[in-house]
Amino acid sequence: MADLYAQSGEDKRPAGIPALRWEEPPEGPVLVLLDQTRLPAEEVELVCTDPSALVEAIRSLAVRGAPLLGIAGAYGVALAAVRGFEVEEAAAALAGARPTAVNLAVGVRRAKAAHQEALARTGDARQAASAALAAARALHEEDAEASARMAGHGLALLDELLPAGGHRVLTHCNTGALVSGGEGTAFAVALAAHRAGRLRRLWVDETRPLLQGARLTAYEAARNGIPYTLLTDSAAGSLFAAGEVDAVLIGADRIAADGSVANKVGSYPLAVLARYHHVPFVVVAPVTTVDAGTRNGASIEVEQRPGHEVTEVTVPQVPVTGAGGGIPVAPLGTQAYNPAFDVTPPELVTAIVTERGVVSPVTAEALAEVVAGSRMPSTG
Amino acid sequence: MADLYAQSGEDKRPAGIPALRWEEPPEGPVLVLLDQTRLPAEEVELVCTDPSALVEAIRSLAVRGAPLLGIAGAYGVALAAVRGFEVEEAAAALAGARPTAVNLAVGVRRAKAAHQEALARTGDARQAASAALAAARALHEEDAEASARMAGHGLALLDELLPAGGHRVLTHCNTGALVSGGEGTAFAVALAAHRAGRLRRLWVDETRPLLQGARLTAYEAARNGIPYTLLTDSAAGSLFAAGEVDAVLIGADRIAADGSVANKVGSYPLAVLARYHHVPFVVVAPVTTVDAGTRNGASIEVEQRPGHEVTEVTVPQVPVTGAGGGIPVAPLGTQAYNPAFDVTPPELVTAIVTERGVVSPVTAEALAEVVAGSRMPSTG
Repeated sequence: MADLYAQSGEDKRPAGIPALRWEEPPEGPVLVLLDQTRLPAEEVELVCTDPSALVEAIRSLAVRGAPLLGIAGAYGVALAAVRGFEVEEAAAALAGARPTAVNLAVGVRRAKAAHQEALARTGDARQAASAALAAARALHEEDAEASARMAGHGLALLDELLPAGGHRVLTHCNTGALVSGGEGTAFAVALAAHRAGRLRRLWVDETRPLLQGARLTAYEAARNGIPYTLLTDSAAGSLFAAGEVDAVLIGADRIAADGSVANKVGSYPLAVLARYHHVPFVVVAPVTTVDAGTRNGASIEVEQRPGHEVTEVTVPQVPVTGAGGGIPVAPLGTQAYNPAFDVTPPELVTAIVTERGVVSPVTAEALAEVVAGSRMPSTG
Repeated sequence: MADLYAQSGEDKRPAGIPALRWEEPPEGPVLVLLDQTRLPAEEVELVCTDPSALVEAIRSLAVRGAPLLGIAGAYGVALAAVRGFEVEEAAAALAGARPTAVNLAVGVRRAKAAHQEALARTGDARQAASAALAAARALHEEDAEASARMAGHGLALLDELLPAGGHRVLTHCNTGALVSGGEGTAFAVALAAHRAGRLRRLWVDETRPLLQGARLTAYEAARNGIPYTLLTDSAAGSLFAAGEVDAVLIGADRIAADGSVANKVGSYPLAVLARYHHVPFVVVAPVTTVDAGTRNGASIEVEQRPGHEVTEVTVPQVPVTGAGGGIPVAPLGTQAYNPAFDVTPPELVTAIVTERGVVSPVTAEALAEVVAGSRMPSTG
């Protein structure tokens, strides 16, 4: 198997999990994706030889996760340019594959802009295609770099908070290489602790309703040789009560200016449990997650997802009988409350770890400073 | 359909859900069970004409729930006696169908003792069989009576705690007619509030890993016309944060002498959330649940259940591919932490509602008094 990362001189991706890679076999350049809809049962790769194959992969959730989608979108534009497709048209189709995915649109725009600029400057299609590919690679590299920095800052923080070592860390949802150009956010910190020999156990919340913890985080933990244990989301309480959790590490979908953290539903109950048990609750997210335009937690509108995610169970390779595409487990007609994420107020967050440093205690001022890069990375 | 409860002069069972009933068609007496393994998709009745059919129903979990198993066991002895089977042998088989179910053994013993006593006294097999049946009916009636009393005390407590009415109640696991000779414990209180026109909404936790909330509590709520909404266990945090929960009502597996409550895993996190949000956390359980021999929460040994309940999803009528009898959702070889229940300390419990009155605040002394019946039922 060709190794893309050898080309850039260093490999910031975990050896085991190439969620996405650019390859240049004799038949021509391709974008290779790990089909995440088949995990953890099967590791199947999708080889995209044209932009429409990538559009389909994005639509089917074969590739997912905000940062990874941005990188995929940028490579998609490069693929169109290198293979001689109409770049404007491909860019529009890619950005429209998941209209609410902001990172996807940003990644597409960046590669398209590089392509246009080079084309205008040189008038040469090949040079323009190279520029688009370089833009995609740069985005990929930056994301991997941000992951590595977050992992470093996060591990330093863990070591400071837990000087005795032997960290037992609880995490929720999926925040590793499957959603990132690098090793992810919260998961990257746990992985760094594991590599440093200081992770005793990773407790993996299954993360209902879509089971990203059971399906994906457990997969990433297993692939990286991390000692991990899966649990139902509500069994976390028993672990806290038994003193088995030293820290909680989660990612973030969005962080408001005051430090309120929107993340996968189930994060807030963990924050309350962590506070009750005097356990650090640490959020790991790149500075792009901080939305200065959102003043506080109350300003974050929580998306309600379809009820069938709760009333039906969806398992791969099983005949569907429910209206929502799964197998009904609740009585027909049952109404479900299914918020996509919840909001944890800053007073319950011990620290926010970014690639530019650690915000702790979490205040609007400290967060703004770190985002602006005006504060030196610190762990205190 | 014949109605057993007409015979005893009053019907304490909910109209819609006969989890178990004794019938006497011309072909001879039978015990009719609602097959709970088929819920909520299908309402299928199992008709037991001999004790071994009931043994099989107990083993397959067609009939389940501590109080209901006791009643089923007693009726099983009566069925053996009435139908001319060897009573000692049937009693041993019934009690052994689920060896850890204490109530089952107690119910079997009670009917067997009545049978033996009558046989010794009268020497008449028919009279002895009648005595066994009368014992089963008495147990059934007592359980229904206890449910009704808990419902009354619980509703009075809710009305006192929430004088504004329009209660929005969160519950966990399954505590209604499907596990009881009457209308259950926590669910019976919610049902009483509904009948009194004071229940605005019942929030039903799905209760992973076995989904008793989604499968059974949602079914009971729907059958009783209660306005209910299902949610994943970890979405409860969002409801609390939004001020949408006025009280939590749960049952109990066991209550220690100090008032520590062992109940289905996921109860403790709700207690912590309730405390953080200043919401009453109310436990509803008969006095038989209080184990004076267990001093406190630390003395309660928590049963660990098989990991495959978490690593595999079990849905009815779907081909099995996993070693645990379900469909794998986590990587093969994943280890799971799967405690059957958790323990909530008395300081997080607002009140314990029993058929003999309400214990609040929860102290060892107050609990002992109510169990002994030496304190008048009170709601304060």
